Amino acid sequence: MENVSKLEQERRLYKPKLPVSLRPGILQATVTKGKATQSVNDQDQIAKLFPHTYGQSELGFEVGTKKSTARALRVGVVLSGGQAPGGHNVISGIFDGINELGLESELIGFLGGPGGLEKGKYKKLDSVIINEYRNTGGFDIIGSGRTKLETNEQFDLCITHIQALSLDAIVIIGGDDSNTNAAILAEYLASKGEKCLVIGVPKTIDGDLKSKSIPTSFGFDTACKVYSELVGNIARDAVSAKKYWHFIKLMGRSASHIALEVGLQTHPNLTLISEEVAHRGQSLKNIVDEICDIITARADASKNYGIVLVPEGLIEFIPSFKTLIGELNDVLAHHEKEVNAKENVSDKIALLKNWLKESSFQVLNSIPESIQTQLLWDRDPHGNVQVSRIDTEMLLIQMVEAELKNRKSGNHYSGSFSWQRHFFGYEGRCAAPSNFDADYCYSLGYSAVTLILHGLNGYMASITNLSQGPDAWKAGGIPITMLMNMEQRHGSQKPVIQKALVELDGPVFHTLSANREQFAKEDSFSYPGPIQYFGPSSVSDQVTFTLAIEGT
Amino acid sequence: MENVSKLEQERRLYKPKLPVSLRPGILQATVTKGKATQSVNDQDQIAKLFPHTYGQSELGFEVGTKKSTARALRVGVVLSGGQAPGGHNVISGIFDGINELGLESELIGFLGGPGGLEKGKYKKLDSVIINEYRNTGGFDIIGSGRTKLETNEQFDLCITHIQALSLDAIVIIGGDDSNTNAAILAEYLASKGEKCLVIGVPKTIDGDLKSKSIPTSFGFDTACKVYSELVGNIARDAVSAKKYWHFIKLMGRSASHIALEVGLQTHPNLTLISEEVAHRGQSLKNIVDEICDIITARADASKNYGIVLVPEGLIEFIPSFKTLIGELNDVLAHHEKEVNAKENVSDKIALLKNWLKESSFQVLNSIPESIQTQLLWDRDPHGNVQVSRIDTEMLLIQMVEAELKNRKSGNHYSGSFSWQRHFFGYEGRCAAPSNFDADYCYSLGYSAVTLILHGLNGYMASITNLSQGPDAWKAGGIPITMLMNMEQRHGSQKPVIQKALVELDGPVFHTLSANREQFAKEDSFSYPGPIQYFGPSSVSDQVTFTLAIEGT
Repeated sequence: MENVSKLEQERRLYKPKLPVSLRPGILQATVTKGKATQSVNDQDQIAKLFPHTYGQSELGFEVGTKKSTARALRVGVVLSGGQAPGGHNVISGIFDGINELGLESELIGFLGGPGGLEKGKYKKLDSVIINEYRNTGGFDIIGSGRTKLETNEQFDLCITHIQALSLDAIVIIGGDDSNTNAAILAEYLASKGEKCLVIGVPKTIDGDLKSKSIPTSFGFDTACKVYSELVGNIARDAVSAKKYWHFIKLMGRSASHIALEVGLQTHPNLTLISEEVAHRGQSLKNIVDEICDIITARADASKNYGIVLVPEGLIEFIPSFKTLIGELNDVLAHHEKEVNAKENVSDKIALLKNWLKESSFQVLNSIPESIQTQLLWDRDPHGNVQVSRIDTEMLLIQMVEAELKNRKSGNHYSGSFSWQRHFFGYEGRCAAPSNFDADYCYSLGYSAVTLILHGLNGYMASITNLSQGPDAWKAGGIPITMLMNMEQRHGSQKPVIQKALVELDGPVFHTLSANREQFAKEDSFSYPGPIQYFGPSSVSDQVTFTLAIEGT
Repeated sequence: MENVSKLEQERRLYKPKLPVSLRPGILQATVTKGKATQSVNDQDQIAKLFPHTYGQSELGFEVGTKKSTARALRVGVVLSGGQAPGGHNVISGIFDGINELGLESELIGFLGGPGGLEKGKYKKLDSVIINEYRNTGGFDIIGSGRTKLETNEQFDLCITHIQALSLDAIVIIGGDDSNTNAAILAEYLASKGEKCLVIGVPKTIDGDLKSKSIPTSFGFDTACKVYSELVGNIARDAVSAKKYWHFIKLMGRSASHIALEVGLQTHPNLTLISEEVAHRGQSLKNIVDEICDIITARADASKNYGIVLVPEGLIEFIPSFKTLIGELNDVLAHHEKEVNAKENVSDKIALLKNWLKESSFQVLNSIPESIQTQLLWDRDPHGNVQVSRIDTEMLLIQMVEAELKNRKSGNHYSGSFSWQRHFFGYEGRCAAPSNFDADYCYSLGYSAVTLILHGLNGYMASITNLSQGPDAWKAGGIPITMLMNMEQRHGSQKPVIQKALVELDGPVFHTLSANREQFAKEDSFSYPGPIQYFGPSSVSDQVTFTLAIEGT
């Protein structure tokens, strides 16, 4: 059987759009310097840690009056961390970009993430390979991985391979952690007198890597559209069958941008936002009550159905739970064997009472056994609970069910409550990029090459004015250090890119909260449907609500 | 905020395609009679039960040389059972059809399923309402329901409303059960001398309502494409991250057509087919071993990732489980209180030992506690276990995990096994219909009106030659009784439409089985992507593999 689907056959032929300044070609682009930059915080410390790469200017590309001198480039590329739609287009953008500069240009793909760079595992990417991956989803062209490059030993190994391959630059495509490491590698190479440059590209479906100059990370657009398709379909099912409350967990552990965007695209009855839960200091009980109030009000209007969106990371934002999880991680680091030796969950809990604070024990004791079990499951390699394995939506369902029973016995609720649960994450990370992400990623790849040609180090490729369509896009780059501050990691202060959480006083959250009451009461569901790659531009070239509202 | 999405705004304007014979208009269509028909089995008994409607001819529509006389029609329509993409298009097809026949024509939508017909709850459907729902997903225009119309008392209530509304016909849009009831209602009305006709329309995403004259039920195309989009995206994630085995359960309790179609669209490493499991008399252990053999072979090739598709109804097809579930339903019908009085699952199981056969107790005792719990959950209103609530994929994961541990300790497996679980069903039932389903459903609605105009009763609208595109489609109708046989229901023999299971000696299953070895070993995944409503016809007008292979 043919493996390449009909859609993929057509999509491979799509020609992504570039910002106007890059259309005449990279050699025609000139670099205009903005002001020198500062890190978002802890400027003195960051400056000290990045003497060669701190304080550089923001840059924009313009169409110049004369061409730069062509010179072939040898570039290595790394995909780092979780998949995001559009990664293959960043790579094809880099490939087409360096091929404009000379026939001897070469693109080296390091295999399986940053580990490939450390171990010198790579493959040369030629036009036959690249053409198979244009505008496709996934990171399978070279694979990805989560190895962190952070020690000098690792960097020295990288240098060996960089030298052996005579690389002019490495492009690291990743999220906040990976770009932090890109900045450190850039600084390290410069400090060793290496000519090889390091350029970062902002990737993450979570949307938490952003700033004024990085209006969105790539993949957020496509992933949110896939999740919105599904949530919309389920909402239409709910309003047709009038039978179920659907609790839908959405990927996004550190921030709730995805839930917020999907909420704006589909209008669920309740969209929980982790940042708001933390800000309001809500307990699990508060959240359950909030859900039950909506369910009760709708039941009074004979609507025993609805949609609740739950961000994956929710429980880590509930202050009392955050404390419990922290304590559990500590306790299990020391007493894992004793706890695992107990067969029943109830015995494990009884044992844990010895080491947990009373308040934390109470929280643990208040939740259903199935969730207790999950909180005690094996830790990840860093000793942390695997939050994505915790059925947060099920936790809420069970506690809501119990609370509604209470209300019923007190005559405060007369509806019927049937539920369905869903978790969407892996469904969206490798979707074929929307036209937006296809164009954006290809443009990021081109911008990365432009930065390299101009000898820039420790920069992140940047496209702004994204809400206005490619004809209005502005390409350029920013020093990665400008996104950094100092944070506590593994017991010491480290320079890291500051995560962009949902801003509760920002216009995007404000749009949701202004509509909440209506969304809760009425059936105001919206059904965005699947991503369209063809057809009317009003459909196929939509940007996210987040971008449109922020106007960036 | 605007509730109508951009895609929905565009889709409402789509003009569905009709078969050639209906394009000049319903009045221009003539009816050609085929041979008199027989039921699929138990001909004598069915003939006796349906004296007025048995044995009628299969019918085809042709473009005639002169027009029929126009006469306005008053038609009632009912949506019955689970949602399927395209229901709104059947209704808009009926609406446009009767409006061709006269300005006084009227379409009455009964609300909330067959119960609306019984209770006389309805709304008149005018062009303002219809235009809001053209080519949209969901059944929300009038809602659906699962009330079964089967007793004479119910039928007499229906007649009251039929008379009050002066209806010329009722169109019942539903699956095998609903069409069975349509046939019985048709016969009842005829036996009472009522002029009102009853026409059925074949709906179900499960694909188990089909025959030579009904090549597919509507909604199967769209739902399978949605699931295939998701399975493809997850497969691309698996091959990119090389980290997880994804176990994906797909809706489809009585038959595995959905799993089979999605398997052909996406090429998972293993597609379980319930009918095959039953045919081979496999135990749960056999299935777990089969999965583990594939996992082990892939681990030997350093591939610790993959995709397993699990049909929702699987456990009911495992002979030993089927027996257990039957016994549990019986036991709980008599001893529910005593069992529920026990707090722990292990105490409940110990109590059940008293009433279950030893072999069934062993099966129950062999599965993880979480699944035992689900098997003991509240019964549905008919006293049956709620199969869709049983985490079959989780059952397999836990047993696979245990078996792999065994193999590891015996040095027969050296890989690492991490898993993710998914269940897709509600995501596809209310998707906006694909071009295929939009056209097919609209044509079914038109055909229903043509049947009514020609005074036909107890027929199901039928479009054949579906794999060839609307220009080659043949419209007509078949007597519903020809799909029927006698089956045991609630302790007595009843006339019912025979469910179409996956044919293990048919060309569709054969195509899967011929490719199984390759799909298991290699990464032959295919990524169909989301349904496209616009763009190249090769993409937007694809039919299912099932239809294409059957060539019907």
